[in-house]
Amino acid sequence: MSYQREDATSTEMRHDWLLDRWVIMAPERTSRPDDFERKSVKVVQQVEDCPFCQGHEYETPSALAEYSVAKSSGTWQVRVVPNKFPAVRANAAFVQSASCDLLSDCVMGDGVEMTSEIDLFQKRNLSGGHEVIVESPRHLSSMTQLDREAMYLVFEAYRDRLARWLEHDDAEYAVVFKNVGPDAGASLIHTHSQLIATDVLPTDIARSTARMQLFYEREGECLFCRTIQDEVQLQNRVVECTDDFLVYCPFASRLPSLVTIVPRTHQSQFEMLDGAPLEHLAWLTHRTIRRIEKCFPEAAYNLVIHTSPRFLKGSSIFHWRIELFPRITKIAGFEWGSDCFINPIPPEIAAPRLRHILV
Amino acid sequence: MSYQREDATSTEMRHDWLLDRWVIMAPERTSRPDDFERKSVKVVQQVEDCPFCQGHEYETPSALAEYSVAKSSGTWQVRVVPNKFPAVRANAAFVQSASCDLLSDCVMGDGVEMTSEIDLFQKRNLSGGHEVIVESPRHLSSMTQLDREAMYLVFEAYRDRLARWLEHDDAEYAVVFKNVGPDAGASLIHTHSQLIATDVLPTDIARSTARMQLFYEREGECLFCRTIQDEVQLQNRVVECTDDFLVYCPFASRLPSLVTIVPRTHQSQFEMLDGAPLEHLAWLTHRTIRRIEKCFPEAAYNLVIHTSPRFLKGSSIFHWRIELFPRITKIAGFEWGSDCFINPIPPEIAAPRLRHILV
Repeated sequence: MSYQREDATSTEMRHDWLLDRWVIMAPERTSRPDDFERKSVKVVQQVEDCPFCQGHEYETPSALAEYSVAKSSGTWQVRVVPNKFPAVRANAAFVQSASCDLLSDCVMGDGVEMTSEIDLFQKRNLSGGHEVIVESPRHLSSMTQLDREAMYLVFEAYRDRLARWLEHDDAEYAVVFKNVGPDAGASLIHTHSQLIATDVLPTDIARSTARMQLFYEREGECLFCRTIQDEVQLQNRVVECTDDFLVYCPFASRLPSLVTIVPRTHQSQFEMLDGAPLEHLAWLTHRTIRRIEKCFPEAAYNLVIHTSPRFLKGSSIFHWRIELFPRITKIAGFEWGSDCFINPIPPEIAAPRLRHILV
Repeated sequence: MSYQREDATSTEMRHDWLLDRWVIMAPERTSRPDDFERKSVKVVQQVEDCPFCQGHEYETPSALAEYSVAKSSGTWQVRVVPNKFPAVRANAAFVQSASCDLLSDCVMGDGVEMTSEIDLFQKRNLSGGHEVIVESPRHLSSMTQLDREAMYLVFEAYRDRLARWLEHDDAEYAVVFKNVGPDAGASLIHTHSQLIATDVLPTDIARSTARMQLFYEREGECLFCRTIQDEVQLQNRVVECTDDFLVYCPFASRLPSLVTIVPRTHQSQFEMLDGAPLEHLAWLTHRTIRRIEKCFPEAAYNLVIHTSPRFLKGSSIFHWRIELFPRITKIAGFEWGSDCFINPIPPEIAAPRLRHILV
């Protein structure tokens, strides 16, 4: 094992440079007793009622895009529709609270200090979009049931929808994410992903991009380019390394077995990928999810694609990446009250476990 | 209903002044379809194996404190023990990474920029303590099964342990919290709370105290004193208001039905409470948990007591408070990736629901 505690009687904290926050590593916590039977949640298998299955297209809003396999007779393989229950809506007019009229260029987590009098009940409207990417016409529950061609179509859809929002519309920020299993926030079983686009930067995006800018100013290189170079050299947190991409468990992960996939050369925009690299990435993601599924059977997980917000597009500062994380721990009162997470599986233990899975 | 959307086709965001972050309010999201049966988790009822039950004291480390009811014959009613699986240990020596030797007065979320060369793999040791407050000698699963006298003893224990860490030891920060149900991070059913004390300020504590300081500098009064005055006047987010305390649902809650209990006059330290006010607060908390239990049967929930970190003790800046929040939504990929939460129950809807519960 490549992981050794310097002092088994002490508590180790690690600094996440990207978001400037500390994480507690506490592998001893995994040996706690547990009164609760972790039953896998029974899934209601109502295929005939599933709004994402072929033949049920009338249950969703009209498709924004459809993708088919080369040799099919016009049947869609991947289908993008507006979310019927959107968290973010388009074309919103500003809602203003009583004493607030300076919000037009407001950035979440910034800009509020500029008003002359503090308003404790400040509101604004959020404008953008919320889409669903249905990944198969069949009632599959995992992306790993897709074949190589189908995976490529899903990644094409990701790429196209991100490009659409970040190039042709008013979004400042867009993210593709995937919730699998109820503990990861999923409400439908049929394999799908989502896209949310917003006209402001969410708090952590504003913070992390500011940190990337700071790193670049001080070191003259991209934070992730440096990290990749270090991780490839150290090897102990590497899950897989190909010519083009690195799969690794970051040094200060807040969640156990969180995995990051990054391009090894600097690229700011996921949505610029095409052809062989996109196909390669799609299958590498498939393989990485297989590792997680085999390592943590039945565990819920999330996938998040971080691509450059509009204002850093094409920059030397932002490096796109995919994060994948099984949801095997719960966020308890301490974490909620402090934003200080306790990770019971240090990445030096998580990475070799995932690496040694046969995929 | 006191809550009206200005524009039903738009998405509303609200600013949380305390942590300078935006929250999305999306009540429409509650009508989403759901494939998953939310089965209540079956509890393994192994009373004979419970380390917190009377007669099993040998299964925990020696008691740090015990509290008894006035007329009992020496039997403990509340028992405080060190956590057998601590997330934070005492008396740790510093672990230093290769290029880092300036961490002695490091504050989480701050201070790292001061090193001359950026170290992406920075570690430090965390020193402090992790205690368990066992709230009854009997195998009860909820604090609401305690009577008034037993509740007072629990709150006395909270008060004494916080005072011990913040007055006589090296802790810069200490928090009492309670996890009830597996979705809230609990692993044992027997009613208990925990205390974590640390020699550094966790990220969100450093941020929120900086915001409270900023508010005080700009407005000449405490952020919470102002909030309390406004909420009492507005009434629409008030759950209960007594002579001494206010129970309300904050304007920009990240979680649905989050409730805050605050003293109506300025007090920075929970651990200064005694006698009638402490008894009053204990029973008000009991009543508020009953509201949550009746409104969301079987839901997991957390309780967190925010008292002043050492450096703001006795100040006009920090206002102590208790937060209580049922865990009825899951944190999905979007929230994890952005720190932007989607709350499906605006506090103007949550508060009257809780207020109208008969307790």
